Amino acid sequence: MPRGRLRDLGLSSGVLPTARWNAITDVAGVAVGYATLIRDEPAIVRTGVTAIWPRHEGIWTDAVFAGFHSFNGNGEMTGLPWLAEQGMLGAPIAITNTFSVGAVRDAICAFAVREGAPQPFHLPVVAETYDGWLSESETFPITAEHAFAALDTAASGPLAEGNVGGGTGMICHEFKGGTGTASRVATTEGESFVVGALVQANYGAREMLRVDGVPVGREIGFSLVPSHRGGEAGSIIVVLATDAPLLPIQCRRLARRAATGLAWAGGFGANGSGDIFLAFSTANHLREGDSLATVRTIAPARMTPLFQAAAEATEEAILNALIAAETMTGRSGRTAYALPLEALTSVMRRYRPA
Amino acid sequence: MPRGRLRDLGLSSGVLPTARWNAITDVAGVAVGYATLIRDEPAIVRTGVTAIWPRHEGIWTDAVFAGFHSFNGNGEMTGLPWLAEQGMLGAPIAITNTFSVGAVRDAICAFAVREGAPQPFHLPVVAETYDGWLSESETFPITAEHAFAALDTAASGPLAEGNVGGGTGMICHEFKGGTGTASRVATTEGESFVVGALVQANYGAREMLRVDGVPVGREIGFSLVPSHRGGEAGSIIVVLATDAPLLPIQCRRLARRAATGLAWAGGFGANGSGDIFLAFSTANHLREGDSLATVRTIAPARMTPLFQAAAEATEEAILNALIAAETMTGRSGRTAYALPLEALTSVMRRYRPA
Amino acid sequence: MPRGRLRDLGLSSGVLPTARWNAITDVAGVAVGYATLIRDEPAIVRTGVTAIWPRHEGIWTDAVFAGFHSFNGNGEMTGLPWLAEQGMLGAPIAITNTFSVGAVRDAICAFAVREGAPQPFHLPVVAETYDGWLSESETFPITAEHAFAALDTAASGPLAEGNVGGGTGMICHEFKGGTGTASRVATTEGESFVVGALVQANYGAREMLRVDGVPVGREIGFSLVPSHRGGEAGSIIVVLATDAPLLPIQCRRLARRAATGLAWAGGFGANGSGDIFLAFSTANHLREGDSLATVRTIAPARMTPLFQAAAEATEEAILNALIAAETMTGRSGRTAYALPLEALTSVMRRYRPA
Amino acid sequence: MPRGRLRDLGLSSGVLPTARWNAITDVAGVAVGYATLIRDEPAIVRTGVTAIWPRHEGIWTDAVFAGFHSFNGNGEMTGLPWLAEQGMLGAPIAITNTFSVGAVRDAICAFAVREGAPQPFHLPVVAETYDGWLSESETFPITAEHAFAALDTAASGPLAEGNVGGGTGMICHEFKGGTGTASRVATTEGESFVVGALVQANYGAREMLRVDGVPVGREIGFSLVPSHRGGEAGSIIVVLATDAPLLPIQCRRLARRAATGLAWAGGFGANGSGDIFLAFSTANHLREGDSLATVRTIAPARMTPLFQAAAEATEEAILNALIAAETMTGRSGRTAYALPLEALTSVMRRYRPA
Repeated sequence: MPRGRLRDLGLSSGVLPTARWNAITDVAGVAVGYATLIRDEPAIVRTGVTAIWPRHEGIWTDAVFAGFHSFNGNGEMTGLPWLAEQGMLGAPIAITNTFSVGAVRDAICAFAVREGAPQPFHLPVVAETYDGWLSESETFPITAEHAFAALDTAASGPLAEGNVGGGTGMICHEFKGGTGTASRVATTEGESFVVGALVQANYGAREMLRVDGVPVGREIGFSLVPSHRGGEAGSIIVVLATDAPLLPIQCRRLARRAATGLAWAGGFGANGSGDIFLAFSTANHLREGDSLATVRTIAPARMTPLFQAAAEATEEAILNALIAAETMTGRSGRTAYALPLEALTSVMRRYRPA
Repeated sequence: MPRGRLRDLGLSSGVLPTARWNAITDVAGVAVGYATLIRDEPAIVRTGVTAIWPRHEGIWTDAVFAGFHSFNGNGEMTGLPWLAEQGMLGAPIAITNTFSVGAVRDAICAFAVREGAPQPFHLPVVAETYDGWLSESETFPITAEHAFAALDTAASGPLAEGNVGGGTGMICHEFKGGTGTASRVATTEGESFVVGALVQANYGAREMLRVDGVPVGREIGFSLVPSHRGGEAGSIIVVLATDAPLLPIQCRRLARRAATGLAWAGGFGANGSGDIFLAFSTANHLREGDSLATVRTIAPARMTPLFQAAAEATEEAILNALIAAETMTGRSGRTAYALPLEALTSVMRRYRPA
Repeated sequence: MPRGRLRDLGLSSGVLPTARWNAITDVAGVAVGYATLIRDEPAIVRTGVTAIWPRHEGIWTDAVFAGFHSFNGNGEMTGLPWLAEQGMLGAPIAITNTFSVGAVRDAICAFAVREGAPQPFHLPVVAETYDGWLSESETFPITAEHAFAALDTAASGPLAEGNVGGGTGMICHEFKGGTGTASRVATTEGESFVVGALVQANYGAREMLRVDGVPVGREIGFSLVPSHRGGEAGSIIVVLATDAPLLPIQCRRLARRAATGLAWAGGFGANGSGDIFLAFSTANHLREGDSLATVRTIAPARMTPLFQAAAEATEEAILNALIAAETMTGRSGRTAYALPLEALTSVMRRYRPA
Repeated sequence: MPRGRLRDLGLSSGVLPTARWNAITDVAGVAVGYATLIRDEPAIVRTGVTAIWPRHEGIWTDAVFAGFHSFNGNGEMTGLPWLAEQGMLGAPIAITNTFSVGAVRDAICAFAVREGAPQPFHLPVVAETYDGWLSESETFPITAEHAFAALDTAASGPLAEGNVGGGTGMICHEFKGGTGTASRVATTEGESFVVGALVQANYGAREMLRVDGVPVGREIGFSLVPSHRGGEAGSIIVVLATDAPLLPIQCRRLARRAATGLAWAGGFGANGSGDIFLAFSTANHLREGDSLATVRTIAPARMTPLFQAAAEATEEAILNALIAAETMTGRSGRTAYALPLEALTSVMRRYRPA
């Protein structure tokens, strides 16, 4: 069975409709790029960088509102003090492996210098999950050039998933994990907004994995494909984008709902997991040099469909990462096995009422 | 079919074992009492007070460590500044209706005066959910005496559920809601700890309700029993207790996992919902007048089974509230219908593989 | 020397100009009312309620943006979850004594019912400081009627200070404390905004008191007037108002600067002190029933003068409370002595260069 | 007048006694090292790295408890999610310039690999202030080797101050700023604890500078030495260490008091300032591999003297940075002038009563 996405298998989760690409790039202006490193010399490396432009044009001088939630903070996300303080984000976001957060963080500053961004300094948001089980990450393989490549190649439209970008060496629910994305359209008072999610999924025990509530992980068990890395390691980074007009404090509210989507897929924030979520809204503009901005905010009561959309998009992005990711062998001959798709669809059929 | 608890129906959720009573009172020393007001004169009232003693003996002079998480803060929980500051709780906890938080809060102070507690002042934790759909809560029916009654009658052992205490007038997933409880035993490195949950469940849309992943709410729909209050109103308060030796910061970590159990049952923190969670540990002692305390803390890695236990206990406590609560008619002739148990068990059977 | 305000003594602190009344009521639309209880039967009571209307007209249906900071959370402020969640405040604020927070909190709900506020429930902000050294506060003397009186009598214009409202029984830097207020005009890019502060000052050791940097407390010492309550007890509540267009997250930033003004006066948040600060902006309107609001926000860089204004107004409000408050004798014959004004001005002269 | 420290000038601030070195290294086990880069080729660079070992021996396998406070988050401090989550710190801390946070952060991970630290990954705390006014920081001059040098040369005992380490290119209150340190002994119930502070001071307007309450900045003005960089830029990082037995939540309380010391020196967190504070306690031990730790915590009431000590040590560390730092000329021929010491002592004399 060829790998693809959840909906390619005739499966689905959640109830809200997806937007065009069922990807974070359904939020207009958002662009995503990857740098993927898969090489065996001079070290065995399975890693990469994912770059997300909240505005592909103009982010350096036209910040977006943003907020975060650390559901289980055994991980790193840089840039948090300014997000907590003022809720503005004026640089692209990146996700990479744990040992390379710093290299990618400084690289975004260097990229800003290269682009001629007018500010004297930058506080970019860079997050990580750990890929050292498959990759010799202690060799520090990521350089500024990889970050530049991810930033330079970012595009809108449909996205590659699975073993790409920062998600290259990930393991999720004891299957091969990686990068995944999804989106939802949330309608409130006749107006529709898009909520998109992109995840770097590297967490979870197999027995906890659920697909639309079905205990797929428990049913598949370990007979078809073994697991050699325990389920408590790892992390998940979730980036949520929306075109709904939100204030920073509302972005933070949205970010918190990634915990709901994560729960639906079977994650509960094991101690070792850095489960940190970022949400941004592209609907308001705060241009460098403006002394006053007029911005819009939806009434609080209208957040509810956005919350549901954020939870659903997160859940499906995780499933898409699992379904796209292919079996990978890395350091020390270790293999992380892909989620067996026929087993998945078989279990799903058994659990559906006739 | 007589009402009871989830497991009375031959159903279950989660994988960890329950403790003796499958209740928050499985944590030694925890006691719970209720005052329940169901009367039609002078006003139609369906309300009450739930009191939880973290230590039935000695709480005034031997604080417990505690922490909280506000998943969606459209509600009230008093006492938060000191919990955030120092993570100590030196008074009983109470849950009541939205309009009576103040009365119950001051009543706990008065109770402390009556008991001769040595401190000059108290910062009790009192939370609320809204019962004004069934109860004329704007008549402010709760008095200090009701709070005293709940405090005075608190006991350990098995607990009443459903339409009792602060949960009397609740509605959950558009069925009659109320008070529920459950517990789990979490084993780490050969040592077993109890995590107990008590919820006052008053949130959620019917279509979102899940039992062990099965979309029970969607399947039952509205044909058997209607719903007259929308699913976006309401709130859920979760109180978690454990005998694991946790620091305040670890109690806060535990509290955050109530969001996972809530997600499993179908709650995602709608805007109108005050979803606020409190967790405390009885394992350490900080006695009034001691200048130095020696306390124990489990290694962070051992939190994982406690997290799972907290999520599972929360989920099952919600289901127990729904299963115990009986149909109730209140103000303006409004009726909140109980979850139809035969429909529930029928749906569960259909979704289980042969 | 007649009591009055800092500037009546020819003294000043800070550098920014004051607004018209040098009071929180300089922010247009803000109104303040007091209920003051000074009686010896049936119990010796020195207490009261201070009510602050962020909008004297329309607050129930036109919320203000707000944020808080708990510098030392050994105190109570209700309403925090919704402030943290959405940063909106749709009810008057009150400050009272520690034992009566609940009574006043519920009274504001009852007042909303009386006024016909359209929302089904309310989450009012009520804070406290402890007056049990002078007042038999364990007799719970405050009733809903006192809260109503403070709410009903609120007005704009100059304010009474010292032994009034919630500040009646306060002690500050081991002198008689109480209620104080001040304001500043902050100009940024040619536009002027008002920042006003109102404090209920009940904290601090005498030796730490400073006036414009001069160690007044240390110099006055204990020879003129003794101190019978230690300096570690007590608390300070600071309410900041501004007409600058701030988002909720910016209100929180403003609130944090009360710690700076407090430091200048000599407070560092002793353990027993509940030092909790609230800030709100009247410049934006979020009307009940609106589905979308267009709001304004000043650029982050323009916050700096507001921060300085908040710090200066807080400092001077504390000094005004001390200078206005008169010696008071209360329970058990205890006396809290007023700051001796001639000693104050004498010390200030000695520390000023010729 | 030779540069030195506050007390070398016959001046002092605060009332608590200093410990032996009047430095953060007075907390036993704490070591500090610097790498200082002052060169004109190939780029004009005035920067460096400051490394702080919370335990000079064993930090990789014996974490300290820690907490942070972001008073004004316009800056970066990595490692915050795990500090917020579990309050443990298992790596050395570093402070550098804004553009090099990433390089130093990854370098600490590389150092851990070199040292054979047993954990698979690390979440080091690295903070920054901006030195781009004097240094061509956009050339990214800091490499891993500089971080290693700071780490390798760390020692206990008296510390260099002023233009050293990460503080090399700093400007403070519009004078030359830099690195400063101080300590206090806090006695509670007959037991003495040390609180030490180290600051990287790069903030503030000249007119706000105060020394022991005296408006030194306003008095010195701009006639003796000009200022070419405005007072709103910049930041201050404060690291507090103590040997008092604190829980993580108590470390966070301590960190918050750096805002008090900062206020006394004249800082109020201007918008552009990244004022982020870290506090750690060396008194408890949490060894890698231990499943349970027994730790001590002082009673909350005993925190008060520690709070005062933290505020005083922060204030004096700032003043020491200003007094030690020498005039420096950097990029584009710009000069940051040292605080003129004779003017300082002259103003102090004028403001002291005869």
